[in-house]
Amino acid sequence: MIDDLNKSARQRHTSNTVIRLGDTTIGDGRLSIIAGPCSVESEEQILEIAKSVKAYGADILRGGAFKPRTSPYDFQGKKADGLRLLSLAKKETGLPIISEIVALHHIDLFEDVDILQVGARNMQNFELLKELGKSKKPVLLKRGFSNTLKELLSSAEYIMSNGNDKVILCERGIRSFETWTRNTLDLSAVPLLKELSHLPVIVDPSHATGISSLVEPMSLAGVAAGADGLMIEVHNCPQKALSDGKQSIKPEDFEILVQKAKKIKNIL
Amino acid sequence: MIDDLNKSARQRHTSNTVIRLGDTTIGDGRLSIIAGPCSVESEEQILEIAKSVKAYGADILRGGAFKPRTSPYDFQGKKADGLRLLSLAKKETGLPIISEIVALHHIDLFEDVDILQVGARNMQNFELLKELGKSKKPVLLKRGFSNTLKELLSSAEYIMSNGNDKVILCERGIRSFETWTRNTLDLSAVPLLKELSHLPVIVDPSHATGISSLVEPMSLAGVAAGADGLMIEVHNCPQKALSDGKQSIKPEDFEILVQKAKKIKNIL
Amino acid sequence: MIDDLNKSARQRHTSNTVIRLGDTTIGDGRLSIIAGPCSVESEEQILEIAKSVKAYGADILRGGAFKPRTSPYDFQGKKADGLRLLSLAKKETGLPIISEIVALHHIDLFEDVDILQVGARNMQNFELLKELGKSKKPVLLKRGFSNTLKELLSSAEYIMSNGNDKVILCERGIRSFETWTRNTLDLSAVPLLKELSHLPVIVDPSHATGISSLVEPMSLAGVAAGADGLMIEVHNCPQKALSDGKQSIKPEDFEILVQKAKKIKNIL
Amino acid sequence: MIDDLNKSARQRHTSNTVIRLGDTTIGDGRLSIIAGPCSVESEEQILEIAKSVKAYGADILRGGAFKPRTSPYDFQGKKADGLRLLSLAKKETGLPIISEIVALHHIDLFEDVDILQVGARNMQNFELLKELGKSKKPVLLKRGFSNTLKELLSSAEYIMSNGNDKVILCERGIRSFETWTRNTLDLSAVPLLKELSHLPVIVDPSHATGISSLVEPMSLAGVAAGADGLMIEVHNCPQKALSDGKQSIKPEDFEILVQKAKKIKNIL
Repeated sequence: MIDDLNKSARQRHTSNTVIRLGDTTIGDGRLSIIAGPCSVESEEQILEIAKSVKAYGADILRGGAFKPRTSPYDFQGKKADGLRLLSLAKKETGLPIISEIVALHHIDLFEDVDILQVGARNMQNFELLKELGKSKKPVLLKRGFSNTLKELLSSAEYIMSNGNDKVILCERGIRSFETWTRNTLDLSAVPLLKELSHLPVIVDPSHATGISSLVEPMSLAGVAAGADGLMIEVHNCPQKALSDGKQSIKPEDFEILVQKAKKIKNIL
Repeated sequence: MIDDLNKSARQRHTSNTVIRLGDTTIGDGRLSIIAGPCSVESEEQILEIAKSVKAYGADILRGGAFKPRTSPYDFQGKKADGLRLLSLAKKETGLPIISEIVALHHIDLFEDVDILQVGARNMQNFELLKELGKSKKPVLLKRGFSNTLKELLSSAEYIMSNGNDKVILCERGIRSFETWTRNTLDLSAVPLLKELSHLPVIVDPSHATGISSLVEPMSLAGVAAGADGLMIEVHNCPQKALSDGKQSIKPEDFEILVQKAKKIKNIL
Repeated sequence: MIDDLNKSARQRHTSNTVIRLGDTTIGDGRLSIIAGPCSVESEEQILEIAKSVKAYGADILRGGAFKPRTSPYDFQGKKADGLRLLSLAKKETGLPIISEIVALHHIDLFEDVDILQVGARNMQNFELLKELGKSKKPVLLKRGFSNTLKELLSSAEYIMSNGNDKVILCERGIRSFETWTRNTLDLSAVPLLKELSHLPVIVDPSHATGISSLVEPMSLAGVAAGADGLMIEVHNCPQKALSDGKQSIKPEDFEILVQKAKKIKNIL
Repeated sequence: MIDDLNKSARQRHTSNTVIRLGDTTIGDGRLSIIAGPCSVESEEQILEIAKSVKAYGADILRGGAFKPRTSPYDFQGKKADGLRLLSLAKKETGLPIISEIVALHHIDLFEDVDILQVGARNMQNFELLKELGKSKKPVLLKRGFSNTLKELLSSAEYIMSNGNDKVILCERGIRSFETWTRNTLDLSAVPLLKELSHLPVIVDPSHATGISSLVEPMSLAGVAAGADGLMIEVHNCPQKALSDGKQSIKPEDFEILVQKAKKIKNIL
């Protein structure tokens, strides 16, 4: 349906792409849950959250180490130290880990990371995408907050045409005139991307809304729209989070969310 | 939470507003289904569709008679004749009816219409809203395609402050840079409006997406997000529809949609 | 270039439409200046401003009497009284007057008004447009803040196809993600509308920006882009204005603006 | 006026930043003209265009060598070869040259380039910005097509806080719902950026509009709004251009544009 797509197009590859990570999978019909804090802050924090989210149904642990922030004067993440702590949490819980990569020359630090995340601001950083095309690891590609679905799929092509077929697409909200929510979660992207492409599609309601009370309803809506998974920010103490506390939910709320989300997935 | 709201604000009226129409209700926890063609086209068309949607679970019949179209040279609806045919379908099926009103001086023609609809383009036609505030009929107020939620609630205030408390809010997609879909359905509006206001919230996935294959997933997503009801365009022969055929679904697809939607509503 | 345009299209009518109003004209190559307060507030206010703007180069006096406000609880204008005061200022200064009309049944109150203004929120109030098509007075049609140029021209068609050729188009800013300015003044609309249509095009930098320090540079930019005129909010005491004081400029700043604007017009 | 700005803020540095390049300057009150083709295509092409634009008033020669394109299957620029040809044109004409840099590891190839350009897609590629902060060359930073002015200035801070004060800001159009033009040129950005910051501001009407007939009016509007310079795509044969032919103007039209633009600059 989009002429200049090739590797990512549904008509070239009718069966769904399935990503395998240890014991878990993304894209084969089950609901994948990625959860964890916005930023890795301390050993205690990441271990406590990792254990909670595992107990409540997460398949994959998220945690930011390199944080691309609008202002150079804001907290930029714990960087190499953050990745080391995330690795520790992986060992303790057995959960695969995902973290955002912002520059090619950091790649060695990501050796233990299972999924490389490309953030919204780097969705059209084509030099980064080309390099990730040479990696053997799955790449979670977030939609830029002002990029069309065609542009998202074209960016997936940059990774795939360089040799890496393991791309996961992520809808995380687009910029609109509405200012009540941080972004506008465009859930029609989910069924449209599933029509146009064979790649798995994940929804991130935390960054999209920026409001913790909206995370559950928008997670359930994402699942009902056909998403292959959810990416949820969970923090043991949202009000003390170093970044994005307003949109983080507590582990006990995460537990209820996962239970409802799985029931909806079963209906579809 | 919004200072200059009064009648529509949740904090002024904590219990949900419930709209009663004959045997059916909107806003009391069950899922309300409004369905029918974009435009009333002929007696045969509206009667056939009305019977189908009733059989498959619709509570209320929709049908446009006065159609506000971007160009004066496009089909403008069957006007008074369209309302007469809609009335006939009401008699035959017992379903309450809803149709869009575009001018005050048409009000007498709407005597038999149960819910007066204000379209997106008229959301800030304050003269019309003030007059509808004097009516005793429920008003379904569609969000303008570029209006914020605060503006939507302020428009509800125009109706309510003039004496009519029976307002139903409707999310029908906003204008964004994404051109694949006709509009971007902003489902975060649903839980946000439910937090801010006690008024019922309905989702219209047909106008929002403009693509029939997206109507089911976005309907289910709307229900999962907490909507009190859905407004779906159903046509017995979408490819021959005089307006909006591309987004209309067939009665048999509507049946499946309603069944799934009710299952999701039950989980919440 | 736009297939479904008819009366407004440049290819149907290659020479520019020129609007004549007493001694002044709009659209014949000279720069037309419309100026005055957002709202008519009192006899003293409107007379003082009218005399100032006339002295400093205005051709037409503006003043709002019926104000469509987002909230029903905000100042709604002085209505019939406001129009009466505007009429008085017309008599005193000889300037033609323009004011916004929001409902058909107000038409008799506008007998002395020279140009009927349709506000951004009513750009797609087609019932109003059709009625204004039956008037013999020029209509200034403001672009809706989220309407495309094609939609603006289609709305002009509603007026023109009902018999009134005297339409003036007005760019007044569109809604975008940028929140620093109230709206985003889309000046590329000016040369595009002049290419597509033979109708005069006016720029309103006051509503577009919402910031008084931007009114002069954006006025000059509008003229450089090819506008036939400017519509400027001028207030003798902006900080005490009942509406839109932040974007109003003082008479003495208006004088300088007009001088610079005319010099730029002469270069083109 | 923006709390978290530091180096770029007007209140920290009230006099305008002036960039010096050989015989020319940017930001000291005169109008700077950057012109040239979208992409360097051949020796003949770049030399012919360079000579033309110099003759008609350009101060700086532009030419893309590394082209970040939405699709990996589109022409990606002539890369190192393109920079070599641009260098040749610099030698022949004496004009300083500007070209876009997309990756840190290309920096050695840019030795002869006078201004390093950061494209809209890389405006929030903070790793690239930090590295450019270590360069001694001026950086022209384009506003991302969906970035606010505050975000643009925050990105300038990434360069300046790393040691490079020579930043030139460039408005090149933002993404809106209007699809007639490629982007919406936000000229109110010009006076606002001049108020908020001491950095020079350049306007690129070619990328903003995507339509050659709009380049002159929007250039003149940019100058009238207060821009320190213009960046114009000029091609000797627009219909044969390998990229962006539709928005390129011919050398003879460029000549007229420059003359008018300078007259407007003199009025201000």
